[in-house]
Amino acid sequence: MQKADGFVVSELEGVYRAIRERRDVRSGFLPERMNDELLLKLLQAAHYAPSVGLMQPWRFILIRRIEIRRAVYEIFQRANQAALSSYEPERAEKYAKLKLEGILDAPQNLCVVCNPEATRGHRLGRRSMPETAIYSTVCAVQNLWLAARAEGIGVGWVSILDPAALREVLHIPEHIVPVAYLCLGYVDRFASEPDLVRSGWESRIPVEEAVNFEQFDSPWTPEGMRV
Amino acid sequence: MQKADGFVVSELEGVYRAIRERRDVRSGFLPERMNDELLLKLLQAAHYAPSVGLMQPWRFILIRRIEIRRAVYEIFQRANQAALSSYEPERAEKYAKLKLEGILDAPQNLCVVCNPEATRGHRLGRRSMPETAIYSTVCAVQNLWLAARAEGIGVGWVSILDPAALREVLHIPEHIVPVAYLCLGYVDRFASEPDLVRSGWESRIPVEEAVNFEQFDSPWTPEGMRV
Repeated sequence: MQKADGFVVSELEGVYRAIRERRDVRSGFLPERMNDELLLKLLQAAHYAPSVGLMQPWRFILIRRIEIRRAVYEIFQRANQAALSSYEPERAEKYAKLKLEGILDAPQNLCVVCNPEATRGHRLGRRSMPETAIYSTVCAVQNLWLAARAEGIGVGWVSILDPAALREVLHIPEHIVPVAYLCLGYVDRFASEPDLVRSGWESRIPVEEAVNFEQFDSPWTPEGMRV
Repeated sequence: MQKADGFVVSELEGVYRAIRERRDVRSGFLPERMNDELLLKLLQAAHYAPSVGLMQPWRFILIRRIEIRRAVYEIFQRANQAALSSYEPERAEKYAKLKLEGILDAPQNLCVVCNPEATRGHRLGRRSMPETAIYSTVCAVQNLWLAARAEGIGVGWVSILDPAALREVLHIPEHIVPVAYLCLGYVDRFASEPDLVRSGWESRIPVEEAVNFEQFDSPWTPEGMRV
């Protein structure tokens, strides 16, 4: 029987490289603005994401104005202060040293929102799992993140934000869900390891520990070699 | 100032090609099983996903046994029947013609779950937006989907399932969230357009309609050329 081909080696390696070398970038953003052509290329990559019922429920808010980024930065500062106060002293000291966003450094910010009640897609696939509209929007974020890495563009996802306050600053209506707030821009370099590994905040677990077989409570022992 | 490089052309094109040519595959799965080495490569790609606080909250349940896939297929059938009855006649007729899953055809199924309360990551980034643990898990799904496309492996996401019933069949505890149920395997071909476009269920919107500028209620007019 005919079997569909995979990609040629260099294209395949590009995909794995983007996946492996993608970083959550919080520092090292350069002041140079991206042009609209490149931005649109990345947004198009996001827009190719899978969506339940072909709903395409995402909307992208591109933010360049410094006044708006300053208002978002204030929202971050409040949420970050609250997070800091929630840790016991030793962990708080580590937390305080982390750089966790590039809102003012990155000349482009992008807020990715979702309309989970949009009628596009005729509700296909959303009756039993309505949360898939939001999940589709997250897939769009990941597409953009990988395409950006391949273009040499750093992306950082800021989740230390109060969604209600963000909604107010960006005029996002009540029925629209802010899913991701991203900082985008040229960077001086991509770190070889995640910042949280390098700073000793957390370490990675091997993939084998994350795989089960046939049911949730049984481990998987792959045949033969390991990656 | 030094600027980090993007990928060489063939690698860059690989990334965009995977994004553009990825399909939600529901038919054309071949009976040939994937070997564990390739599966582990795809799971490793998923495991490289970004996660809030480096939490890595995902777990993958690999399912090969036909008895389990049959039990999941029954869950699908019930949810699908309920969905069908919710449409008015004309839409129901269209719906009934769609092939929406490959649970029994694809020799590998993969249930991707999330533990949103895991302590890894020390709650970094989850105080203001706790939903980011689930979002991290969705990023892992998208990584796997793109790597699979590059390897010539079809992936279909089945959301027409009752999560409670799925939990029971796969022994998933109450505090663990089933995020995605995927069908994986070699395929005879990848369609040039999504099934839902080809069947006339829904059409795509242009990316420009999905982008706003500075705030949710203002359109964006990119300078110069369009993609």
